[in-house]
Amino acid sequence: MCQLLGMNCNVPTDICFSFEGFRARGGRTDQHSDGWGIAFFEERGCRLFLDDRPSAESPIAELVRDYPIRSLNVIAHIRKATHGHVALQNTHPFQRELWGQYWVFAHNGELKDFTPVGEGRFRPVGDTDSEAAFCHILNTLQQQFPQQAPTPVELLRSLREISQHIARHGMFNFLLSNGELLFAHCATNLHYVQRKAPFGTAHLVDEDVSVDFSELTTAEDRVALIATLPLTDDETWTKMAPGELLAFHHGRVLARG
Amino acid sequence: MCQLLGMNCNVPTDICFSFEGFRARGGRTDQHSDGWGIAFFEERGCRLFLDDRPSAESPIAELVRDYPIRSLNVIAHIRKATHGHVALQNTHPFQRELWGQYWVFAHNGELKDFTPVGEGRFRPVGDTDSEAAFCHILNTLQQQFPQQAPTPVELLRSLREISQHIARHGMFNFLLSNGELLFAHCATNLHYVQRKAPFGTAHLVDEDVSVDFSELTTAEDRVALIATLPLTDDETWTKMAPGELLAFHHGRVLARG
Repeated sequence: MCQLLGMNCNVPTDICFSFEGFRARGGRTDQHSDGWGIAFFEERGCRLFLDDRPSAESPIAELVRDYPIRSLNVIAHIRKATHGHVALQNTHPFQRELWGQYWVFAHNGELKDFTPVGEGRFRPVGDTDSEAAFCHILNTLQQQFPQQAPTPVELLRSLREISQHIARHGMFNFLLSNGELLFAHCATNLHYVQRKAPFGTAHLVDEDVSVDFSELTTAEDRVALIATLPLTDDETWTKMAPGELLAFHHGRVLARG
Repeated sequence: MCQLLGMNCNVPTDICFSFEGFRARGGRTDQHSDGWGIAFFEERGCRLFLDDRPSAESPIAELVRDYPIRSLNVIAHIRKATHGHVALQNTHPFQRELWGQYWVFAHNGELKDFTPVGEGRFRPVGDTDSEAAFCHILNTLQQQFPQQAPTPVELLRSLREISQHIARHGMFNFLLSNGELLFAHCATNLHYVQRKAPFGTAHLVDEDVSVDFSELTTAEDRVALIATLPLTDDETWTKMAPGELLAFHHGRVLARG
């Protein structure tokens, strides 16, 4: 299996602290050592770092930890290969463009006998069940809304149907973002925490590192973090229910699907 | 204007030496300081590093220089903004997926009154003439070959027509790759060199650095480098003719369009 990490904020925020704990799970404190990746949305652009080496040893991961990239939406993934060999084309997150927006997707779980019918507009480059699911999501959205992006509520309704359909094939925890909204779908394990004023300190589960957010934030800042397993041991993380789909916007839950 | 750098090889090769000279033009030996990017194909996957900071000062550029990524096809770009403000979504190279292949594109030049008709499958995310041209190329290819990728010869023929059409709107030097082939279209300035055995030394124009390729290569290695202006001062670079389109494969010119 793999692990997921997402961040959704109302002001551009760096993810260095959370990433420090998360990357340790890629080969040091846990076994997810078959590559990793992280996508940062900045304005309408997207910066995607991928590496097929373990995140705990990756020079690119060191860069990401040391170079604060401020972003409203981030999706990261560390991989334990199930379907598809260890290669760059099988490394999450995956990225495509739809309606003139970049879309980014990462999956934790395993889908069986999932072979979407037909040759859609979006096709997998690698051979993972995850990328096939992402392409199926985008093909379905594009067929339902061929000309332009729907409203967030319409999007959530469509994604709920598509997710339920795909989830019949296996475990389908995923994070999906277009740079404005961040969608989180829970099958088994997905937790979130919403940080807002008054900010306190937090301590990582995976490293003996603490941070005092009150020194780094203003009273208006809101940050939602979503992760397979809680990253800190002194904050209140909410476990999502199986089948639950949440849309995060500006650091809070905007809607539930 | 901007500068382009491409590499096409028959064995995975790192671009560290050439990139060292090229990145110096992004704010140190030349004025192309409005961001830069580089794409490396590895198997079917693609790794794209983008930064809206000058390449001469970018920590990501330092990583790319120091971390040898071996690739058959590389496209890099340093930007001097003309259309579109300095932002990540306007930073080349651009990437899309077509026929289950990643496609990467970078442009040097300026197009005037280029507004492709209709809402195609591929749409720009940013607001550069370059990304609009890339989307137009892919929309046209997809309409001509809707189901699967054509042969290299068919591809070259189509690209020649599309390039001639777009070039009516202005200066259209570009590099385009799907990870197998690298296409280079010259409007004004594009030079290439083909390195093969017996390998010798080469000295950068932009930095006082030399490399002895005979220590790094085998007799079968072939590497083609394509750049706006020659990167070395002791190798024979060929200047492409205006309107010329070349398809590189395995380090040599496969076909001329």
